[in-house]
Amino acid sequence: MEACGLIVEYNPFHNGHLYHLTKSKEQSNASCLIAVMSGNFLQRGEPAIIDKFQRTEIALRSGVDLVVELPYAYAVQHSDLFSYGAITTLANLFCPTVCFGSEHGEIEDFFSAYNVLVKEKQTFQAELHHYLGQGLSFPEASKHAYASIGLTEGSVDLSSPNNILGFSYVKAIKEYGYSIQPMTIERTSNQFHQETITSSIASATSIRKELLASKEIPNKVKQAIPVPTFEALEDYYEKTGVWHDWEHYFSLLKYRIQTMPLTELESIHGVEEGLEYRLKRTVESAVSFNDWMQTLKTKRYTWTRLQRICTHILTNTKKVDIEKMKETNTLPYVRVLGMTKTGQDYLHQIKKETDIPIYTKLPTDNSLLSVVEQRATDAYYSILSPQNQIKLKRQEVLPPIRV
Amino acid sequence: MEACGLIVEYNPFHNGHLYHLTKSKEQSNASCLIAVMSGNFLQRGEPAIIDKFQRTEIALRSGVDLVVELPYAYAVQHSDLFSYGAITTLANLFCPTVCFGSEHGEIEDFFSAYNVLVKEKQTFQAELHHYLGQGLSFPEASKHAYASIGLTEGSVDLSSPNNILGFSYVKAIKEYGYSIQPMTIERTSNQFHQETITSSIASATSIRKELLASKEIPNKVKQAIPVPTFEALEDYYEKTGVWHDWEHYFSLLKYRIQTMPLTELESIHGVEEGLEYRLKRTVESAVSFNDWMQTLKTKRYTWTRLQRICTHILTNTKKVDIEKMKETNTLPYVRVLGMTKTGQDYLHQIKKETDIPIYTKLPTDNSLLSVVEQRATDAYYSILSPQNQIKLKRQEVLPPIRV
Repeated sequence: MEACGLIVEYNPFHNGHLYHLTKSKEQSNASCLIAVMSGNFLQRGEPAIIDKFQRTEIALRSGVDLVVELPYAYAVQHSDLFSYGAITTLANLFCPTVCFGSEHGEIEDFFSAYNVLVKEKQTFQAELHHYLGQGLSFPEASKHAYASIGLTEGSVDLSSPNNILGFSYVKAIKEYGYSIQPMTIERTSNQFHQETITSSIASATSIRKELLASKEIPNKVKQAIPVPTFEALEDYYEKTGVWHDWEHYFSLLKYRIQTMPLTELESIHGVEEGLEYRLKRTVESAVSFNDWMQTLKTKRYTWTRLQRICTHILTNTKKVDIEKMKETNTLPYVRVLGMTKTGQDYLHQIKKETDIPIYTKLPTDNSLLSVVEQRATDAYYSILSPQNQIKLKRQEVLPPIRV
Repeated sequence: MEACGLIVEYNPFHNGHLYHLTKSKEQSNASCLIAVMSGNFLQRGEPAIIDKFQRTEIALRSGVDLVVELPYAYAVQHSDLFSYGAITTLANLFCPTVCFGSEHGEIEDFFSAYNVLVKEKQTFQAELHHYLGQGLSFPEASKHAYASIGLTEGSVDLSSPNNILGFSYVKAIKEYGYSIQPMTIERTSNQFHQETITSSIASATSIRKELLASKEIPNKVKQAIPVPTFEALEDYYEKTGVWHDWEHYFSLLKYRIQTMPLTELESIHGVEEGLEYRLKRTVESAVSFNDWMQTLKTKRYTWTRLQRICTHILTNTKKVDIEKMKETNTLPYVRVLGMTKTGQDYLHQIKKETDIPIYTKLPTDNSLLSVVEQRATDAYYSILSPQNQIKLKRQEVLPPIRV
């Protein structure tokens, strides 16, 4: 049985994801789809709208055969570290292909771009350094540096979010020598950040925006999501009374920033260049998360970067945690969130060959990765009633979801 | 003009406090009453039911002339450190007398008890050590140790809460050689911890219990509090929608304990002997503060001791903070919360003679004391809406309350 890997957030799973999943299966000719899915916090530094267990169930009901977790310590990171975590997870599962969505849609051009980058590495690094020195954000500086080595029009546009991620996957595969064949499927008719729903294919951003503005699922959203998503969204709201959003965490975040000494704030992953002073000063008069972010963001500190930092403050993730994790330069385990019968068979097939443990619940191995994961779970559920916190957290130690 | 000092929490101010205040003025023959009042968190490790500014206004409207703050770092401590902070504050204000309420009511017996203690110090220490070693709490062990040097019946009963505090004041005065004359007034007809209101003199505990069980001021409470307290309680609830209680902070506290690594939890003031493991383990299944405390308390870890620790977790007060504070062995400033015309005249009179700064707002001197105070303020207000947090916190930098 051959597998194809997908790297996903499903926040929430929508018709575009369904399209990608179906196309990936066709193109890879795989009989088992493995999704490496971010847990409760996502790459752009946001809480997932519903928890990872509900999102796992949707994925399984929609055609994915095996859902494994991209640990928090890799999921809430810039694209390079994110990609390393996701690709390494797929490699550990002997996944021969990975299929990602991109604005560009032609895998050959990603390879060419990678070759140019390898050849022009020194120039690229110098240019990147130059633009960062001018106060640009990392994505902006990268874009200019790529342009300076010829990676612009005609080639892969490395300023589009899904091209950037895809390119990072290709880089990770090449740099670590994994025998994974990357493929790509063109994303159509919607842009990553599009904020309104205009058809049955809508961005997750626009869907979240509609959901968070109301307390039920609007018709516009209904047309853009499959039934399992609809049911899971309803179910989660009924159980907990919330769809998670940064605003729910704002008072917690504000409290934390106010009661942390500067040195403690500076020890949080991502807090650099004296940002701790700015965080403390600006939070005082902020009345909402959005309001505060508007005050806080600068050319260099993009909204995404700041959100990631806020997530690390909320989960108390320290620089030292991430440094230690990088030092080990390997994943200590793979954690299964859910599987179909096919997924189970696949796991059975590869189990003898894998070098690392495959856990079906949150491990109690006291590894840094699992300790950080547990903190993320606690922080994520902290806005719920104590009874719901206990109930939902228990899912971490239940057997994986089966569909 | 002569002053008489009172050491108070006024949580909230009631008829018993009014009686004590009137008697203190008579007995001391002072023309200015100075109250050293704990701020937003109290000696037993609880948030004050309404904030220090409202409580200051009540005190001034009820006969106190000058309200100064007992800083958090002294207010939320066992009786010795609490007393040192309060008595030293009064000494810094050249207060010639202090008048405390006690179950015993005879100041001479406090002096005799102190003399016995000085004479039998070694025996006392050995016995205290012995009983602590048997797993008794500090108050229980002290009680037995006092009994072993003859301080029992007939003398001051050092197992009654107000006798204990009064004795600590006397000790602080003697040990630091302050020229303050202590006086005491017998507390009548109510016990410190009495939980029901039976007359117009009721304990603050019973009043809080009634208030927190309802959202308006019950008639039983009305008969036990003067008008300024009634008005301030109403006003605060109208502004904020709460009377502060541990239950409001429980989810914040639980989140903090869950997301702190063990080493960080162990660095909090008061967390000793591996208590961090017990805190983390037991908080998981707790659904309310009360529920949790019932599980947590032991013979050695009394409710009060645990509440104090919880307060330090909430305010992020570290062992190192309190150790540094103790090392300096002095108060860096006195902070005025409010005054009448008489209080202002008194301040004017002594201002030339004092060695330490007298601030009329929360100082921005970056002293450890003021930084810890600011964290306590932020933690206290963190349960309010962002708008109310900002509005109420602003009081820290407004001129003192004038009545």
